[in-house]
Amino acid sequence: MYQYEYPHFAIATDVALFTLLGDELKLLLIRRRGAPFKGSWALPGGFLRTDDATLEECAARELSEEAGVSGFFLEQLYTFGDQGRDPRERVISVAYYALVPGEGLTLTARTDADAAAWFPADALPELAFDHAQIIQLARQRLASKLDYSTVAFQFLPDEFALSDLQRVYEAVKGEQLDKRNFRKFILGLGLVEPTGNERRGGPSRPAKLYRAKTGHRLEYFR
Amino acid sequence: MYQYEYPHFAIATDVALFTLLGDELKLLLIRRRGAPFKGSWALPGGFLRTDDATLEECAARELSEEAGVSGFFLEQLYTFGDQGRDPRERVISVAYYALVPGEGLTLTARTDADAAAWFPADALPELAFDHAQIIQLARQRLASKLDYSTVAFQFLPDEFALSDLQRVYEAVKGEQLDKRNFRKFILGLGLVEPTGNERRGGPSRPAKLYRAKTGHRLEYFR
Repeated sequence: MYQYEYPHFAIATDVALFTLLGDELKLLLIRRRGAPFKGSWALPGGFLRTDDATLEECAARELSEEAGVSGFFLEQLYTFGDQGRDPRERVISVAYYALVPGEGLTLTARTDADAAAWFPADALPELAFDHAQIIQLARQRLASKLDYSTVAFQFLPDEFALSDLQRVYEAVKGEQLDKRNFRKFILGLGLVEPTGNERRGGPSRPAKLYRAKTGHRLEYFR
Repeated sequence: MYQYEYPHFAIATDVALFTLLGDELKLLLIRRRGAPFKGSWALPGGFLRTDDATLEECAARELSEEAGVSGFFLEQLYTFGDQGRDPRERVISVAYYALVPGEGLTLTARTDADAAAWFPADALPELAFDHAQIIQLARQRLASKLDYSTVAFQFLPDEFALSDLQRVYEAVKGEQLDKRNFRKFILGLGLVEPTGNERRGGPSRPAKLYRAKTGHRLEYFR
């Protein structure tokens, strides 16, 4: 047992991990192995341990333990701490959002999860706790960050066509964009450079490939 | 004593409250009555109580208890939870920033504070805990929010001259702005309207007074 002189609380981290598969924005959910909300879909997450040096470390550990995912971009989103958000006791959840390129990623459900799966971000099942609210805030943050940061590159491999980048913007914002205007916007920012390679295949002409000058470091452009 | 089956943690909220006095951005600090960092200046804040229904309520209560301030705008900033940030035990601090019009505000130090005072945001004393880091992040957030939200109105009374609003932008950003360009920017946003009143006094011609169309509700303009 753990004893304290004053009331203490349980701290958890929950992570909304997004990727792009095909043209679709996907969110990772796990199915809960235990109570409460046993059998419900939820965000991966769990309690802070005394050996987690930081909150980020807790979030990354849970994502890896419950879904076998690594190599993601991770940023703090918001902390949820209202009374009653967890039926067991007061749990303060420090929520994160995370992004990962979708290609070649495999999920492995473990520990507190008996399944881990990608869901279309626009067609989620009923969710445990206040996780629907966390996801809504994560999508808003992500959509607005596209307008002033290089966050979109976190969905892409090191080398990509401008049409790949456009698909990220379209999927996250949920709207079609004009190809010429989009290219002008991206090239005007001066954040990408051609790698000299092309992608062939399919009936259309070869696509020039680019890389982000800043790599996967997040930059703000206004 | 409070007993738990798993490790629990102390949750605190800390608040960086800014105001404008004259042309200067000011930050509220309290002097700590007790250990640790007894006698040091720190952000007002304190531990979450079981009867605080939300984290916001805890932050607002502490600001009122320790400095006698009310009527402020309050928004969550970031959660700090690294090991070692508090010498007593692991304390997770949900940090907030708050804004209040400076005119007619009086401070009253109480409870855990033996003094409460406004400091120039650019000339702060040495601070307890990681509060210098919290303040730095709050200033960054505030400066960037000026560019896409109506957050600046939170520093002003209901009726203000455009030069008052310009002083807010200049103080927060730490740079002089061109008067004509600033007026064009603000009027172009369509967020203010003339009240029909003027402010007289001093050698310059009377200043037209405006109000925010949205009142003190935070709006995003791009």
